[in-house]
Amino acid sequence: MIGCDCAVCRSSDPRDKRLRSSVYIETPETAFIVDTGTDFRTQALRENIRRVDAVVFTHSHTDHIMGFDDLRRFSWQRGSMPVYASAKTMADLERVFMFAFKATPNPFPYYLKPEPHLISGPFRLGETIITPLPVPHGEAEVNGYMFSRVERNLIAYLSDCSAVPDEIAQKILGVECLIIDALREKPHPTHMSVAQALEVATRVQPKETYFIHIAHELAQAFEQNLPPHTHLAYDGLKLRFQ
Amino acid sequence: MIGCDCAVCRSSDPRDKRLRSSVYIETPETAFIVDTGTDFRTQALRENIRRVDAVVFTHSHTDHIMGFDDLRRFSWQRGSMPVYASAKTMADLERVFMFAFKATPNPFPYYLKPEPHLISGPFRLGETIITPLPVPHGEAEVNGYMFSRVERNLIAYLSDCSAVPDEIAQKILGVECLIIDALREKPHPTHMSVAQALEVATRVQPKETYFIHIAHELAQAFEQNLPPHTHLAYDGLKLRFQ
Repeated sequence: MIGCDCAVCRSSDPRDKRLRSSVYIETPETAFIVDTGTDFRTQALRENIRRVDAVVFTHSHTDHIMGFDDLRRFSWQRGSMPVYASAKTMADLERVFMFAFKATPNPFPYYLKPEPHLISGPFRLGETIITPLPVPHGEAEVNGYMFSRVERNLIAYLSDCSAVPDEIAQKILGVECLIIDALREKPHPTHMSVAQALEVATRVQPKETYFIHIAHELAQAFEQNLPPHTHLAYDGLKLRFQ
Repeated sequence: MIGCDCAVCRSSDPRDKRLRSSVYIETPETAFIVDTGTDFRTQALRENIRRVDAVVFTHSHTDHIMGFDDLRRFSWQRGSMPVYASAKTMADLERVFMFAFKATPNPFPYYLKPEPHLISGPFRLGETIITPLPVPHGEAEVNGYMFSRVERNLIAYLSDCSAVPDEIAQKILGVECLIIDALREKPHPTHMSVAQALEVATRVQPKETYFIHIAHELAQAFEQNLPPHTHLAYDGLKLRFQ
């Protein structure tokens, strides 16, 4: 954190240096990103990302959208950038990035040209079925997502949530990989604590659980306190599903 | 640039890795920043910035404002964050960061609490007199700024401009340090080329000139082609005025 001298902020473990949460999903037929936080350009350069065919948004808080304009590189390659979001999130994107949504035609060919798709239920990107998972994030509602392929529920991604209602837990029951908000040990009004995230994992019974959206109160070394098959994710972590 | 294999993007000179343009100004009595681009958090961490008493905006393009919310750390320290901008730029900030400007009182103490100050002429931050320098940036108008102390015109900062009208050049005539947009050699509709920036320097007659807002078409090594007292700025560059 800016201006902080705590043990995690001064840690020499590179995994304790954390940028804003996001995932990039590559499949044999397509590639897309979930959220473009403020660090999107830095992350895309670090991972040498060469292709983004679509972006899916969880919600419109600054740490999830402020890198949106840096999609211009991929929008220009493709001619436009398909954007998937709930009606509320899309309205916020249109307000914040008005220059991109309202300019028709855009004055410069390399400008970001978003192509809005409102999410009202499960949708496909290539062969991946994406099921929205609306969850509370304090007083806001955020879309988590389940990513399924060929009758396998591969990933449930719940980046920002303060609770996981039972109907959502039922929907993702037995998912292969649960990626879930676990901000810190101490409770927080809009994010889950480690204990709350562990309780969700008990209900969902995934093969593997990864905690994300971790604050500087939690060192990477805290992972040793977690149950088997439960991990702290870190920047640059890659998961492969065969 | 994302997805680019040009010589500058693959360069081993660390100065060829460039984040968004911004300057941080420390004086004996205060400290402020000009613009909070998308990389503001990364830059604040890199430079170990511990104090920001105000932010001054040049304009509202994404590469100059999208890191605004990361001022929350300093806003929380101080109780609020004084924001100086033209009426047009302030209106854009209020639209984009509506949650911060409109929420009264902010729900959480650590939220960004902007304190808007519309710029209508020269103003002071501590003992520094800041004179707005409106310049064209394509079809937009951007505020450059002159920073003066104790009857010395120290810096003219023109981060984004496609021309410098004569009345502005007259106002900053003989400034000690000219920091000016020089995107690349090839002309561009909204930024100055190296040749245009050199022509401005000829009119302004500064002691030293620094080019900024440099694109990946221009390697740091290009500096050797510039006239005496003319430099390519690089990320982390520090200038001291005694």
